Amino acid sequence: MTLPPSCCWTGDCLELLDQRQLPDAVAFMRLHGWQDVAEAITSMAVRGAPAIGIAAAWGVVLAARSGEDLPSAIQGLRASRPTAVNLCWALNRMQAALASSGSVDVDALAGVATALHNEDRLLTQRLVDHGVSLLAQGCQVLHHCHTGAIATGGVGTALGVIAAAHTRGLLRHAWLDETRPRLQGAALSAWELGCLGVPCTVIVDGASGLLMRRGEVDAVMVGCDRVAANGDVANKIGTYNLALVARAHGIPFYVCAPGSSIDLATPDGDAITIEERDAEEITHVRCVSVAAPGAQAWNPAFDITPAHLVTGFITEFGVLRPPYCEVLSALPLPNQL
Amino acid sequence: MTLPPSCCWTGDCLELLDQRQLPDAVAFMRLHGWQDVAEAITSMAVRGAPAIGIAAAWGVVLAARSGEDLPSAIQGLRASRPTAVNLCWALNRMQAALASSGSVDVDALAGVATALHNEDRLLTQRLVDHGVSLLAQGCQVLHHCHTGAIATGGVGTALGVIAAAHTRGLLRHAWLDETRPRLQGAALSAWELGCLGVPCTVIVDGASGLLMRRGEVDAVMVGCDRVAANGDVANKIGTYNLALVARAHGIPFYVCAPGSSIDLATPDGDAITIEERDAEEITHVRCVSVAAPGAQAWNPAFDITPAHLVTGFITEFGVLRPPYCEVLSALPLPNQL
Repeated sequence: MTLPPSCCWTGDCLELLDQRQLPDAVAFMRLHGWQDVAEAITSMAVRGAPAIGIAAAWGVVLAARSGEDLPSAIQGLRASRPTAVNLCWALNRMQAALASSGSVDVDALAGVATALHNEDRLLTQRLVDHGVSLLAQGCQVLHHCHTGAIATGGVGTALGVIAAAHTRGLLRHAWLDETRPRLQGAALSAWELGCLGVPCTVIVDGASGLLMRRGEVDAVMVGCDRVAANGDVANKIGTYNLALVARAHGIPFYVCAPGSSIDLATPDGDAITIEERDAEEITHVRCVSVAAPGAQAWNPAFDITPAHLVTGFITEFGVLRPPYCEVLSALPLPNQL
Repeated sequence: MTLPPSCCWTGDCLELLDQRQLPDAVAFMRLHGWQDVAEAITSMAVRGAPAIGIAAAWGVVLAARSGEDLPSAIQGLRASRPTAVNLCWALNRMQAALASSGSVDVDALAGVATALHNEDRLLTQRLVDHGVSLLAQGCQVLHHCHTGAIATGGVGTALGVIAAAHTRGLLRHAWLDETRPRLQGAALSAWELGCLGVPCTVIVDGASGLLMRRGEVDAVMVGCDRVAANGDVANKIGTYNLALVARAHGIPFYVCAPGSSIDLATPDGDAITIEERDAEEITHVRCVSVAAPGAQAWNPAFDITPAHLVTGFITEFGVLRPPYCEVLSALPLPNQL
């Protein structure tokens, strides 16, 4: 089965795959205003750092088409989720295009958004090719959250590497952390790999240690929402635990990081704002209460994995190895232009 | 609010708290045959290693009352769950009583089952007192799964320590791993601590690392289903990950282990059978599908935490410190009699 695109521009609105309805339904939303795009990002109808960036860029185009105040629109979109840096990066690109043209040119802005999407398609393919080069014949790879095609404008990042490893006959099995609280692993990653015919098994997030102890994992691959200048990584809650467990077993832990997720302006993980979401995401599953009545819950959406736990960053520029401060600062990053 | 007992003998049947209905309802099952007890254990209507042992002992009494073949009943009860050793231990006690009397004496068997229950009440209180002695004023404790009063015949083990620390004014806050897949932390532990007025917050199992990184955890306390002779621990899936994460942060990791859970006949963790349960416990939550259609899942109910990650065992005999091989073998264990 072919995967649907995460979003596409129809000529007068943004058609967005509603990831909240997956895997039950492949449904698209038609968004006509930047506020709709911001709401789709906040409510996680669109998710995955690269896909969020592309959607936000089209949000600016929608604001320009309806003659709205663009600085306000950009500010509103920027605030829709705080942790992923791709969002800021894409909005900075739109802002720069706006500043250079001097006036609001809707076609020019649409051209920049299209370019962003096309670049993401190319760079995720390059990233995936570099990632596959790390995997040996017969490998088993463990993945956290969802980083597939629909989380990007192209073939995905970490899940794209896993899918490509299958296509090239290298992959023995993929293991998928279900990824509480929103279960992106069980719902989205298992759905995408199922569509692509990749053999995979879902586990609860707490089972990775037992799985590794049994010798069933050769590598861990995850995506990221932001990489700080020192190599600290913000990614979906549970990533840090997984990195610690992998390290304890001597299993390589790779982070797939498009250049747009590398933020040299953030010195380290402590400087990254961690989004805290509604406790109901934990106390309720699909609207059904699963916790004691009145139970409190703490729901950080992300955590910080310190750089020393990262075996390598898989980027469109190649696989980066420590020392990360030096290596990251030497990259030709688009957001540093 | 007073907590209900996990089980009680009415004189002609076993009244069992149906833990599957908590926290929605406090409902009791009336069991008249040993097969009902075995089914209640397998289906986790009764759970928690000490409570399982007590229920199984009453299962033997029920078999004796109805004149059934006791070796078959004991064998059936023994097979109802494979990992917790308390089950075997309680059944061995019943078997020994049977052998020593020479004939089937229902009252004598009921006396042994009553004694088992009373002993559990005393020993969990002693265990809890030893556990509280480890905690300092203002402590925050992280807990996995459910080990409260209703998991035992008395005041609970690890959760009992937390509740007692609150009563004695020592506890600042309890953090509860929700404990996928069956969510015993969110449903049962949050309910019990809520009933007792203990301040607590549920987290997803993957959030413990971030919580520790933020300095919000002074100690981790968990229960166990079996401790091997070398100190390796079988406990609820996710325990091993939690122990690794605690170690990485230098946070003490305590295992509450009644003597009945210490099994010197099992040399190490590799010799412990890990129960694998239905994949639907992962792919469905409260009967609602949360995974991609057709997704495979691997559902081990327990994992093994190696002895070197255990800071200390909290037992009714006191707090045990390494080297565990020597210390455990020197204990006056009831199951070694």
